[in-house]
Amino acid sequence: MIHQHLKKFKAISASKEGITRLGLSDWEDKAHAAAAAAFSRSRRVKTVKDQAGNTFLVNGEGPGPYVVMGSHLDSVPNGGWLDGALGVAGALVAMQKVLQKHRRAPVAVAIWADEEGYRFGNGLWGSRAFAGKVPQEEPLLLDRDGVMLAEVLAERGLQKKLRRSRETGELVPRFVYKPPFEIAAYAEAHIEQGRQLIDAGKRVGLVTHVSGIRRWRLESMGETNHAGTTPMRERRDALVPIAGMVGRLPQLVRGVNNGVITCGAMGVEPGVANVIPNKAWAIVEHRAPTDRDQDETARRLKELVATTGPRAPGVGLEMLPISNVRPMPMSEEVTSRIEEICKKAGVESMRMVSMAAHDAMSVAHVAPAGLFFIPSLRGISHRPDEDSRREDIKLAGDILTRWAMAEVQRVL
Amino acid sequence: MIHQHLKKFKAISASKEGITRLGLSDWEDKAHAAAAAAFSRSRRVKTVKDQAGNTFLVNGEGPGPYVVMGSHLDSVPNGGWLDGALGVAGALVAMQKVLQKHRRAPVAVAIWADEEGYRFGNGLWGSRAFAGKVPQEEPLLLDRDGVMLAEVLAERGLQKKLRRSRETGELVPRFVYKPPFEIAAYAEAHIEQGRQLIDAGKRVGLVTHVSGIRRWRLESMGETNHAGTTPMRERRDALVPIAGMVGRLPQLVRGVNNGVITCGAMGVEPGVANVIPNKAWAIVEHRAPTDRDQDETARRLKELVATTGPRAPGVGLEMLPISNVRPMPMSEEVTSRIEEICKKAGVESMRMVSMAAHDAMSVAHVAPAGLFFIPSLRGISHRPDEDSRREDIKLAGDILTRWAMAEVQRVL
Repeated sequence: MIHQHLKKFKAISASKEGITRLGLSDWEDKAHAAAAAAFSRSRRVKTVKDQAGNTFLVNGEGPGPYVVMGSHLDSVPNGGWLDGALGVAGALVAMQKVLQKHRRAPVAVAIWADEEGYRFGNGLWGSRAFAGKVPQEEPLLLDRDGVMLAEVLAERGLQKKLRRSRETGELVPRFVYKPPFEIAAYAEAHIEQGRQLIDAGKRVGLVTHVSGIRRWRLESMGETNHAGTTPMRERRDALVPIAGMVGRLPQLVRGVNNGVITCGAMGVEPGVANVIPNKAWAIVEHRAPTDRDQDETARRLKELVATTGPRAPGVGLEMLPISNVRPMPMSEEVTSRIEEICKKAGVESMRMVSMAAHDAMSVAHVAPAGLFFIPSLRGISHRPDEDSRREDIKLAGDILTRWAMAEVQRVL
Repeated sequence: MIHQHLKKFKAISASKEGITRLGLSDWEDKAHAAAAAAFSRSRRVKTVKDQAGNTFLVNGEGPGPYVVMGSHLDSVPNGGWLDGALGVAGALVAMQKVLQKHRRAPVAVAIWADEEGYRFGNGLWGSRAFAGKVPQEEPLLLDRDGVMLAEVLAERGLQKKLRRSRETGELVPRFVYKPPFEIAAYAEAHIEQGRQLIDAGKRVGLVTHVSGIRRWRLESMGETNHAGTTPMRERRDALVPIAGMVGRLPQLVRGVNNGVITCGAMGVEPGVANVIPNKAWAIVEHRAPTDRDQDETARRLKELVATTGPRAPGVGLEMLPISNVRPMPMSEEVTSRIEEICKKAGVESMRMVSMAAHDAMSVAHVAPAGLFFIPSLRGISHRPDEDSRREDIKLAGDILTRWAMAEVQRVL
């Protein structure tokens, strides 16, 4: 059953180069509609759309609270078929099973919009909106082509166009959102996107908390000059200090803490072989499971910038914070219930930290929320060859079914 | 006089953002035509165009040999008003003065095309063509938009279109060039584009040789992966080793030699904040006045790559040579004559090495060629605020005049 749903999703926007189904696009809409089609014959299940682009399949009416399962159907460019889709397909299966037994169960599926945040560099968009965690300024974000998120939201009929202030002439930031119902408890299944489960030989990972993510922009300002006639001691080369720091990033997480640190993007201007660069920048991302680990690495990065500065006289170095998502604990109640379900089914599970962000992290702000993983083959994700064992995919649906069945009985 | 010529050139394609007059463009053509206009009333001086886009203003006819002065009229984007233009304006003045005295003097001005090589990343284009130093494959070079140099040459009527091989279907590389005359001796005036003259308090720099330029591409191949879920020890991060090497470049020329080393361009793929890079590259350029200095730095760079490799397991590192222009001695005969002219005029000169490449470097392959500098204010060039003292600009024309006068008398 879960495989049928997954195949249906895969057929939307798939090619040899993988799945490309960006958030807040027509492709994402098509996938949401395909999910809603699972209940097209039900008179009680309603398709509810909100002001962020989320789609909810809700059994019954009213403010709830509901037992909710879900995930997302958007992807990165050339991504895989399971990231997000697994949790939605599993939720559909579980809700169908629950409704066969309890016609009036207060259960719902949440399909969160734009989890990947690829286009605007944000992420967890729809679930953050639901949790009241979208700042008023966020719709001012621009994509690579200079298109504003607010324009996309207005075009898709989700938000009104931003108006300009009469005094300043500038756009007035604004994001209006009212969650359509309350959540009694939330569970999400996801692929691990790493190798911890495979390496430990376990079939289920119970996420106790999701690591925090901090991003900074390292930036330098020097002066262009001729790469031949400017002696080394007279240069104000903006690239050398930035490159040197990027080369040393792995040292910042060595030994003392559990984090990972990455520079995925950097740039240099004017970018000509025989011109000394006057500008360089690098985006540094750090993830760690505790505030203490995060603070320690932030301190070390600051120190690295401070010691690099004096070695690059005449070059201005800056470390600008971009974002700071704090580590988030998941609901112990939901987690231990899923743990119990695994134990009863004879499935080996382990508790773990998620180094990737997931929608459950947003929901945890407003309701008890749990998150569990099944193993990713070779630990690969965000790639066309992302995959999981057939029996583990089925297991994800089974666990959600058992969990929802028990939660519903608790509420009824 | 020289200022009038310079003002005329400056008026072509100048704006607040400086001079943008790329090689092999209509703007360059306009500047060549403006230079030729200096002799529009002369019946003896002919405008000769060749198959590379160079323009020669030749007094008389036949294969020569001629006493030649020249430089270039193309610029980098947003460049200055003197780089190249000084040498052409000075040559025009000198030739006019010589012809006033010796109507039949075998003298000529060379205006070399596309010295900067900005569009196709080559350089000294026209003068290399004259010297037989353009390889048959060079017209296959592509600009940033994928336009081939061969297409530009064909469009401008300089070369025939490349034909495709009947067997392979591929373009057959081809560049046809015949120099229109022989050069008896060549002299070029240029701005220094550095601070050596100002720092030493001299008005003329006599270039004894031009430094060599070697370029390499450092390249790495790793594997993309999720920046959260991939532990540090399991990464095949392509950027960290490349950035680390770029950060260490200045150490490679420290102490032992006279060279300068620069990374002006680098890149990373896929270039997304939360994806571990699978590819990175950096262009490294080294300039030094002797083969020995060049070899020593090349050896150190190779060593740096060799010691960096083992610290980045699973990442393939390569050091690919792009180009190798060897240090070029200038004609001692021409240089000492210009030195003598300065001495007689009571102008302080100094012998020096040019760290920048100039057209005289190409001409030196086929004729005795000399090159001298006047000071650049604040050492600045390739920028809108590039400038020199008014009296030094005049001096450049005066020196060329005296040199040409003496050379012509030697030939006549």
